[in-house]
Amino acid sequence: MELWYTEKHSESVNFSLKVKEHLFSGQSEFQKLDILDTYEYGKLMTLDGLVMVTEKDEFVYHDMIVHTPMAVNPDVKNVLVIGGGDGGTVRELMRYNNIEHVDMVEIDKLVCDAAKKYLPTLSCELNNPKVTLLYEDGVKFVKESPDNKYDLIIIDSTDPIGPGEGLFTTEFYTNCHRILTENGILVNQNESVFYEDTQEAALKANSKLKKIFPIVKVYQANIPTYPSGYWLFGFASKKYDPIKDLQADKWNSLGLKTKYYNTDLHVGAFALPSFVKEFFENGSIQFL
Amino acid sequence: MELWYTEKHSESVNFSLKVKEHLFSGQSEFQKLDILDTYEYGKLMTLDGLVMVTEKDEFVYHDMIVHTPMAVNPDVKNVLVIGGGDGGTVRELMRYNNIEHVDMVEIDKLVCDAAKKYLPTLSCELNNPKVTLLYEDGVKFVKESPDNKYDLIIIDSTDPIGPGEGLFTTEFYTNCHRILTENGILVNQNESVFYEDTQEAALKANSKLKKIFPIVKVYQANIPTYPSGYWLFGFASKKYDPIKDLQADKWNSLGLKTKYYNTDLHVGAFALPSFVKEFFENGSIQFL
Repeated sequence: MELWYTEKHSESVNFSLKVKEHLFSGQSEFQKLDILDTYEYGKLMTLDGLVMVTEKDEFVYHDMIVHTPMAVNPDVKNVLVIGGGDGGTVRELMRYNNIEHVDMVEIDKLVCDAAKKYLPTLSCELNNPKVTLLYEDGVKFVKESPDNKYDLIIIDSTDPIGPGEGLFTTEFYTNCHRILTENGILVNQNESVFYEDTQEAALKANSKLKKIFPIVKVYQANIPTYPSGYWLFGFASKKYDPIKDLQADKWNSLGLKTKYYNTDLHVGAFALPSFVKEFFENGSIQFL
Repeated sequence: MELWYTEKHSESVNFSLKVKEHLFSGQSEFQKLDILDTYEYGKLMTLDGLVMVTEKDEFVYHDMIVHTPMAVNPDVKNVLVIGGGDGGTVRELMRYNNIEHVDMVEIDKLVCDAAKKYLPTLSCELNNPKVTLLYEDGVKFVKESPDNKYDLIIIDSTDPIGPGEGLFTTEFYTNCHRILTENGILVNQNESVFYEDTQEAALKANSKLKKIFPIVKVYQANIPTYPSGYWLFGFASKKYDPIKDLQADKWNSLGLKTKYYNTDLHVGAFALPSFVKEFFENGSIQFL
């Protein structure tokens, strides 16, 4: 018997992975979670049937969502992570000695529990004493947080369907801005552009951030298991420009070994293809 | 009835496109060629069952294989294209007024014939009087070409299996070097690294070029229909460095509108992820 997992990357594009074993299936009050052991990508976590993270290519996503802002402000001390229940983002943050504290607000305890059991290479730092893990609604959490608390907010969310929806709203971003220090940076996973399904979310997240933050840029990475293999992140900031203020020498002097990220790639990640730049300026793409 | 085309991106990864209509199927002495009309990617040409080109994402490949070397030496006059039977590479080359002549050597006439009939947006310049279209073996052609003839050679080949095999050999690259002028640049499609199937070819092409050309670099682009969505190109040159000698102002003054390429992205395309840099230095990748 052959077992295959298939995700519809668009209505007429299927991406399928051959499965060794279906290790876990669970339903929380928020979503359905499955852990599959795949031949090519190692262990895979899906939420409501969509790939969240795989052991083989998670390094791309977590390098880009953590080290990009940290190389712009390596002096970050207090971090808020929204989502990120698999633990990959916290794992990368914990490599910075000067980070004093991380609040991680994951709405769904099941995600962390499953990651702790099945994805130990991701969840390995979730019990670090510098990390406070809160199983709460991120929207409510930022609303109730005091002003000027965090130097960095990382929105490591699902797509804006289901529990992730509130993390793509103007109200949420406004509260994020309020609770960031004057050096504050926000990064988010900003969807993608090759397929219509994610274009609108990518555009909306970007245009909402632009109304609130003076500096908003988009950057890119290659994540093979995400639709089209081309994924975007948002970088929003109160004062730091991600290129002009990149502290390459300082970051490199930390000696962190990273599999995807490096400071040359940092600059390249913000150099978007012409059609992507136009999309964020004009709101449309004509492919065919 | 639903019709789906599936390519195995690796032994345990399938990529499938929903098909409106199977427009053409032909067998030449070299390979099997099919044209499918797909919902998401428009018309698709496959050779021996593998995606060569789709109407939706061909702009990425052709922008990167043509404009990258042209922005380093916008004074290119004589070009040799090996392969490239769909016409996309020649179409982009014909946008440069100062290019005087292109020899295009495609081993398989069927590729050009099918492109002319089914992919007019790609093949539209194949009859340009500046283009000499030769249905010959590229390996033999370069062997028999005189010294110092071309300013630019573009190897727009299939994978090194079947008819493309000879285009990945030291002898072939040595002849390419010989027939290039002292300003000569060679670019090739250089496979990819996320899946084992293409890793060896990527590495070999690169290491063979390094034995022959003083400057050899690798650059990257996002091509959703190619395995992993992450694809590499090789840039080999007798004297021009692709970054130091990039003539951004001069290229931008030409006013070419390109959907993927721009001169900032040019620089970013050469900023490889750390694991890719290490792969080309050490010859191995550890993902899991």
